[in-house]
Parts: sequence; C-alpha cells; structure tokens
Amino acid sequence: AEHLSQSELDYPFKLMEYLNGFRISKAIFSACELGVFDLLLESQKPLTAGEVAQKLGTSGDGIERLLDLLVAIEILEVELMQGTAYYNSTDVANLYLAKSSPKSLHSLIIYHSQTTYPLWNNLVDAVREGKNQNEKTFGLPSEEIFSAIYRSEEEMLKFMGLMNSTWVIDGHDIATAFDLSCFKSIIDLGGCSGALAREIAKEYPSSTVMVLDLPEVIQSAQRHFAQQNDTICFQEGNFFDGEIPSADLYILARIIHDWKDDKNVKLLKKIHSACNKGGGVLIAEALLFENRRGPTMVQTFSLNMLVQTEGKEHPPSYYTHLLTEAGFRDVQVYRTGKSYDAILALK
Amino acid sequence: AEHLSQSELDYPFKLMEYLNGFRISKAIFSACELGVFDLLLESQKPLTAGEVAQKLGTSGDGIERLLDLLVAIEILEVELMQGTAYYNSTDVANLYLAKSSPKSLHSLIIYHSQTTYPLWNNLVDAVREGKNQNEKTFGLPSEEIFSAIYRSEEEMLKFMGLMNSTWVIDGHDIATAFDLSCFKSIIDLGGCSGALAREIAKEYPSSTVMVLDLPEVIQSAQRHFAQQNDTICFQEGNFFDGEIPSADLYILARIIHDWKDDKNVKLLKKIHSACNKGGGVLIAEALLFENRRGPTMVQTFSLNMLVQTEGKEHPPSYYTHLLTEAGFRDVQVYRTGKSYDAILALK
Repeated sequence: AEHLSQSELDYPFKLMEYLNGFRISKAIFSACELGVFDLLLESQKPLTAGEVAQKLGTSGDGIERLLDLLVAIEILEVELMQGTAYYNSTDVANLYLAKSSPKSLHSLIIYHSQTTYPLWNNLVDAVREGKNQNEKTFGLPSEEIFSAIYRSEEEMLKFMGLMNSTWVIDGHDIATAFDLSCFKSIIDLGGCSGALAREIAKEYPSSTVMVLDLPEVIQSAQRHFAQQNDTICFQEGNFFDGEIPSADLYILARIIHDWKDDKNVKLLKKIHSACNKGGGVLIAEALLFENRRGPTMVQTFSLNMLVQTEGKEHPPSYYTHLLTEAGFRDVQVYRTGKSYDAILALK
Repeated sequence: AEHLSQSELDYPFKLMEYLNGFRISKAIFSACELGVFDLLLESQKPLTAGEVAQKLGTSGDGIERLLDLLVAIEILEVELMQGTAYYNSTDVANLYLAKSSPKSLHSLIIYHSQTTYPLWNNLVDAVREGKNQNEKTFGLPSEEIFSAIYRSEEEMLKFMGLMNSTWVIDGHDIATAFDLSCFKSIIDLGGCSGALAREIAKEYPSSTVMVLDLPEVIQSAQRHFAQQNDTICFQEGNFFDGEIPSADLYILARIIHDWKDDKNVKLLKKIHSACNKGGGVLIAEALLFENRRGPTMVQTFSLNMLVQTEGKEHPPSYYTHLLTEAGFRDVQVYRTGKSYDAILALK
C-alpha cells in the first residue's frame, strides 16, 4: 500500500506541512476578509505594507507578516527597492481571490472562514457522536440542517455565495460532461443562485433551463445573483414536500450528499415519476473512489458532511444503486478530475 | 518573481489545497485526540472501522470517514478483504503520531488543536489590532502572555508538551550546529521540560547542563518529564526579574521571539554580564530569509507570534544586531534546513 515517503522518518516535512495547513488556510481567508486582494488589484501598482495598512485600517506590523506569508506561498509577489518592500498581486490572486473577478472564490472563502472553520473545531465530537455540530458550534438545532444553514438572510446569502463560487469554477465541466442537447426542458432542483443552470443554458441555448428552489432562496437569487440577459428562469417550490414540475432533465447538484438513503430514494422516485418520457436526471457530486483511497478532497467533503449535515459523499456504485432502485436505467459516470463529477441516468 | 504555476489559471488545484488545509490539519488532530494511532500501534494487526469505533467509543460512520481521509493522505493504510476494509498504521504514524513513541508529536498536536486553532480563528482581528488574541479567544488578559499560556496546571503541561515535542524532533540539530565542547557549564534559560538540554548533554557529556525556568515550570518538568539517568539538572528562577547564575554558555531557545526589542536587548546585556570569560550564548529560533520570501513555516510562526505573544520571527540580521548591541561578538549563523536554526555568539 502507498504511504508517506520513507524520508519522513528522518524528518517529517510533509507531516509538518499537514499540521500547519490550518494556518495557511486562515492566512488566505483573513487576507480575503480584510480586502487585501481587492486593494492590490485596484491599486494597479505595488504597495508597501504601510500603504496597505493605512488603506485597510489594519496594524502595519500585522499586515506585513500576513503579506510576507502570502509571498512565501507565492500568492503575492514582493520586490525590494532601496530596502523597502513593495507588494504586488499575482494572476492567480487576481483571478480567484479578488472579489470583483468573475471567477472569484471570495464567497467560498468567507463561508469557510466564518462557518466551516469553527464547525471543524468540533470534529472530535462529530466523529464521536456521528452527527453534525451545528448545535455545539452555533447553538442551532442539529436536525434541521437547512434551518441552520439559512438561519438568517445574511447566512443564507453566504451559503448561496459558496454554492455560486463552486459552479462558477466547476459548472462548465458538469455542463459538458455529457451531451445534453436532446433535453429541451431542464430543471435544476435546489439550483440556488443559478450559477450551474447558467453554465447549462450557455452550453445548450435551445433548451429552457429553470431553477427551482425554496421561495426565500429564489427571492435572494433574483435580488443578488441575477445577471443581465439572464436566459434562465426561476421558480419557487419545494421538491421534497411540494410538486415537481414535469421536464426532460432534472439536475441534482450537491443535493443527494446532504441526506440519508431513504430520503434520497424517495426523492429520486418522485423525480422519476415527474420526468417526461425519454428524459433523465443529471447528478453532480464529488465522487469517492470505490477502493476507499481518495480523492483526498472528496474524503474531506465527506467528513464535512458529517460535521454539517446528515449526509456523506459516495463512490459511483452508490449512485448507480440508488438510481436503479428509483427506476432509472443506463447510468453513466463521468469523472472530471476536478472537484465535482457528473452522473447521467435515463428514465 | 516567483508565483503559483500558471496552470492554476486553468484550475486552481494548489489554491484549493491551501483552502482545504485546515480540514486536513483538524482531521489529523482529531485522530490523535481520539487515540486512533495509539490503538492501531497497540493492536499489532489491521482493524475494521467497526472495531476502531467500538474500542474508542465513537460512531462507526464518523470514524470510517476519518480513517478513509487518513488513508487518502497516506498516514494510514487500508486493505480490502472480501469487501471489508482493514485499516493499518504506517511507520510515519507509529513514529510521530502514536503517543508512546519517543519522537511523538502528540503533545504538539493537542496544543495546536485546542489552543492554536481557536486562536487563529481571530487572525483578522490580530492583524487589524496588531496584538494577540488571548482575550477574545480565551477571555485572558493580552498583556501577560505567560499568564495566559500558564493559566492552569493543565494548560502549562500542554504548553510544556508542545515545547518538548519540538526539541525531541529538532534538538539534535541545534546541539550539533556548532562544536560546543569548549563550554563546560551550560544553562538553558527557559528550558522548560528539558528536552533540548538533554540533547545538549547527550552530545557534550563532559559539560554540565542546567535548565533554569519558573518554579512552577521546574516542578512540572521534574514531575512529568524527568527521565531515568537524567544527566541534566534543574533550577528554579526567573531570568528576567531574578539573578542569572554564571556559566560558560547560555541557551535561549524560542525566548527572543516572544518579546519586543527593548526587553530582548536588556536580557542579552544581563546574560553578557553574567557570562564567564570566553563564554557565549546560543540562540535557537526559526530564521526568516532576509529577502522576505520565506521560509513558509517561519512566516507562519511569525503570524502565530502575533496571534499569541508580543514577539515575532526575524531574519539573522536582527539577531546579529541585537547580540552586537548587547556586547557579544563573532556571531555565527547556522541554518538547519528544518524548523529551527542556531546562532552562536561569544562574549
């Protein structure tokens, strides 16, 4: 079996890096929260630590240390001119960390910093109890996971931002995993801000694409995430308790992994019966390997589901089994090699 | 200037890894806290998730996800036999993560999990205010850093464990950075559990090595960290407020980085005047590069000092300047390439 290199036995460099990971994450998170990347992008020229401190209202000493760490991990650049350090952004920071970039991960980072990081402080209890830590971390009931996630409009917007960030980065791969052009009406169930639906609509301009989500989510999506010339439409609903409109293709993106098996089977059966003849369902999830050896990111997501929801991540065989039980056939699995993968099944 | 690979612009794999670092750290921390590595070492044979859960009193589902993540990062191994997963430890885990190993990082990990991780949740405020977050995190006064760190005997022991872990791993490199055999009496000021002093004593058997630290630290060191046939001795004292006994060599290991310049210069002058003729001082610290580009671990330590103390990490030039100002000469710097480096200066 694979294991960390034997050279770790001389000195545990890689292990030390793992143990230090939380501080690297928090340094990037904090720089985002303080607006470091936005300032450096807007300034159009390198700035000294003193200038950054003054514009962001921070201590000079603190921001200098933070900037220097970001230089060390190559997210920022520094140049010394006559003994003074001038900090500049990089293409990677401008593309993914500045708030204004269309590919910004800013919302994902804010969510991780303010919600996921404190939740994971209770990982020991999550593993002991086998349940989420919303109560211990935030004083919220652990049974109603979306009551916890959507506990205020501000929190709902943060969560929607997280989902939006993901599909801005990963949506194109999901949209193009299979040729979906034969599906003329497409509904993204729990489609949140609409970011994945937009990628689908862009790829299949002759299909209609609708986002169905809870009324408060739809209202926020239209208020905060609408785009000029949006070709997708929104509908308020509840696909667990309410009616599911008929369509050729249903998208379930990061829905199944939130819930337990029985709830998932029930949902898929309901979708199957609403689905038009010749239609299907497209599941977008992070897929585990069947052999339990990774991918690391997906194993992490699965523990995250433990800490925050009642679900988990699964290997392809789980989804095939679930879809077959609900009456679907011709299950096809597509691994993108990135964070999220796609599964298509037909009615 | 260096920056993250341009391929990140296609998909930010490395950046995502950084953003996920906190979860990898916490997974390893939690496995240590739950006793996973101790159990696997003691069992002498691979165990199923169910067996681990039963012996550690955790949920089966939670421990399975944790074990699978540890497999993905190659800290554990798994073998599938007739569909059942059997988990086994690795040499690296047995050496560094099991509590009973002489090279165990267990105490360092417990400290990071329970103290450093929550402190870093307030990094934004630390950078804004330019001061430590003991008050916001633990309700402790921010001015008296060792009153915070030593707020109870339990906390003092945890901190001593942290220091002990470090020198068990890094002490040998510090002891052998320079030939110290000409120094017949050596005092480790603030030597805590004595782990570094032991490495020095082992390397220079004809020298006497003494640890001087606060009375409560010395008592705990003797009670909890004493070893059979210990050749080092302990003395209660306070090198800031009390007398410093005369000696040939003083060790200051991770002391200077806790404090501000004026306090450091005052301390070094006091050491200089207590020092025997021909004697010197050995400083063990993590050294920054002069060009502000790393090492990453040391930049992280420097931010850690912001969050928890009133000090910071420095490049060699700082120590040379400080030592020269205090009257020392012939400053020599030795980089180990690991976490801690050594500086020797003579009276």
